[in-house]
Amino acid sequence: MNRSVGDYLDAGPGFAEGEVIERIEAFRRRRPRLRDDIVTLAHGAGGKASAALVDAVFVEAFRNPQLESLGDGAVVALPSGERLALSTDSFVVQPLRFPGGSIGHLAIHGTVNDLAMTGAIPSWISAAFVLEEGFPIDELKEIVADMADAAAGAGVAIVTGDTKVVPKGAADGLFITTAGVGAIPVGRELSAASVRPGDKVLLSGSIGDHGMAVMLARGDLELEADIHSDTAAVSELVEVLLAAAPATRWLRDPTRGGVGTVCNELARSANVGIVLDEEPLVVQPMVAGACEMLGIDPLYVANEGKFLAVVAPDEAGAALAALHAHPLGAEAAEVGEVTEQPAATVVLRTPFGGTRIVDMLVGDPLPRIC
Amino acid sequence: MNRSVGDYLDAGPGFAEGEVIERIEAFRRRRPRLRDDIVTLAHGAGGKASAALVDAVFVEAFRNPQLESLGDGAVVALPSGERLALSTDSFVVQPLRFPGGSIGHLAIHGTVNDLAMTGAIPSWISAAFVLEEGFPIDELKEIVADMADAAAGAGVAIVTGDTKVVPKGAADGLFITTAGVGAIPVGRELSAASVRPGDKVLLSGSIGDHGMAVMLARGDLELEADIHSDTAAVSELVEVLLAAAPATRWLRDPTRGGVGTVCNELARSANVGIVLDEEPLVVQPMVAGACEMLGIDPLYVANEGKFLAVVAPDEAGAALAALHAHPLGAEAAEVGEVTEQPAATVVLRTPFGGTRIVDMLVGDPLPRIC
Repeated sequence: MNRSVGDYLDAGPGFAEGEVIERIEAFRRRRPRLRDDIVTLAHGAGGKASAALVDAVFVEAFRNPQLESLGDGAVVALPSGERLALSTDSFVVQPLRFPGGSIGHLAIHGTVNDLAMTGAIPSWISAAFVLEEGFPIDELKEIVADMADAAAGAGVAIVTGDTKVVPKGAADGLFITTAGVGAIPVGRELSAASVRPGDKVLLSGSIGDHGMAVMLARGDLELEADIHSDTAAVSELVEVLLAAAPATRWLRDPTRGGVGTVCNELARSANVGIVLDEEPLVVQPMVAGACEMLGIDPLYVANEGKFLAVVAPDEAGAALAALHAHPLGAEAAEVGEVTEQPAATVVLRTPFGGTRIVDMLVGDPLPRIC
Repeated sequence: MNRSVGDYLDAGPGFAEGEVIERIEAFRRRRPRLRDDIVTLAHGAGGKASAALVDAVFVEAFRNPQLESLGDGAVVALPSGERLALSTDSFVVQPLRFPGGSIGHLAIHGTVNDLAMTGAIPSWISAAFVLEEGFPIDELKEIVADMADAAAGAGVAIVTGDTKVVPKGAADGLFITTAGVGAIPVGRELSAASVRPGDKVLLSGSIGDHGMAVMLARGDLELEADIHSDTAAVSELVEVLLAAAPATRWLRDPTRGGVGTVCNELARSANVGIVLDEEPLVVQPMVAGACEMLGIDPLYVANEGKFLAVVAPDEAGAALAALHAHPLGAEAAEVGEVTEQPAATVVLRTPFGGTRIVDMLVGDPLPRIC
């Protein structure tokens, strides 16, 4: 079960003040704790278990000002004062090719998008390959061609790399790790800390396409549907948004863990409430149908060409108009708002006036989708 | 067989002019060609097959000014004119822990050293983990602690990262990919193109320690010897060298493929001859003995805490004195010189006045040493 876990709340459109809220907030603010002795697939799903692993193992050991929950881009300052973003992702998706893209596209788009979410102009990419002995060279060439295409489309150069080969059986075909670097224009400040109650939450398009496309491409479900990954570089669309809404507070691409998990991370780190509206959330009919049949909430399914933006209330209209004018933002919508209470909590408002709490993803219903 | 391949030359201390030299040079200048349909372990060894794969697959697809044979650090210029180095490496070493270090130390030292070889001040590191389901969390914590120690020692911060988990059997414990960024001080220009006949070749210490330490730690050879990896960050030692010898032309750490392969890459890209002297090359007695018994030439064994430097002839003395004053450079030596002929060729001069051509590494006698 990976629907929003546990605690359903049905207190109607308004929230009762007092003890109930306080208890919920206290619960929400608790960081997940690592209780495992061994690594499980859930630790790689981008949800609660991932956060617990990152906290207990990586943040604990590497603690420094830039390191905010491994998995985001870091912002660092050069001696000259110029600010750079640095980001990395490993890609282990199976199958390597799926409707709408391949591991090669993902490896570029994923890192380009992570950089764009910091406000940086993505510029340079490194690519490291772990290859399994016996992997066909022709297949490698095709994947590398996809990377070259994706890089050209995103305006980035793949400037350095590495190749390692492990014996047959020691890896699963190939894994690609990219890292990216870009400069952040002067004056651009995006952070969870700048998010304020009253701000609007925008989403650049439909949700769930990538995760479901890969899931179905795997072929081990008895389900066929014409679903294509949305893998794309959103860096150009981010520039369009920031030009129209320069006071934009925060950006994030809802990849592993989906919109539900990413909104929880924001709610916790900014200590605000996020109230999402179900009605404007776009889920393609095929994706909605597949999610329904598999009992998966599209709020937790990964996307690879979308982003969430928190914008100032008075810039939301201009932001949406600008997004709609770009092909990748045609289905952009205002999907929620930032509230003071319940702090550190994400709530979904249904079209019928009900509400339910949206937790972080628990477990991993869709392993290896990126 | 991984001794220097084929062509042995025994023309004495001087070289005959004419047709023989011309033919050798033409042969040397040929880039290795990819003839395989599938990936083999040799493609990951850092020698001839790796160069062929990189040329045919990666350079071909990603072609851009910064990309010089994937595997080095790239130097890029920011809009402000400030120059940055970006480098990446995947680490797949087995066993994960060996005398003198672990995959955690290597993952930091490897990337720090690659940056240092460009003249950059290594500053920020990203770390991406591919974990196999079932990997013990305690072992992960130890490796991560090694990374934190190595980073602290090298003066770099691990600022961002990623964690992916693959099902049991889809990876071999864990793989770590690091990328690193550092700024290059103004006026510092290191490149193969600046290497001139008459320049001196320095080596910062003994060779073969890392590769043989990992090889023996694997335990599948019936050979025991007290050999420790030399894994270390050489960035501080590089600063010491550059302060004493500011006209230094080129730096390179002889990791996979060893000193033999790295010198060949320099000889080819600068179109010069490199004449190495066997006598001053330091090989620890235990390493020399193990190499002898296994039929492996230490010139092709990987190092992880050493570098080669090509320095101006009039600065060689100052450079050596400075290196000797630092603990990591105590055994530094002048090991050769740059010649005009035979171009694109590396020659080893034995203590008895004989010479032999040193080719790039062929095959992979020591898989997964980094």
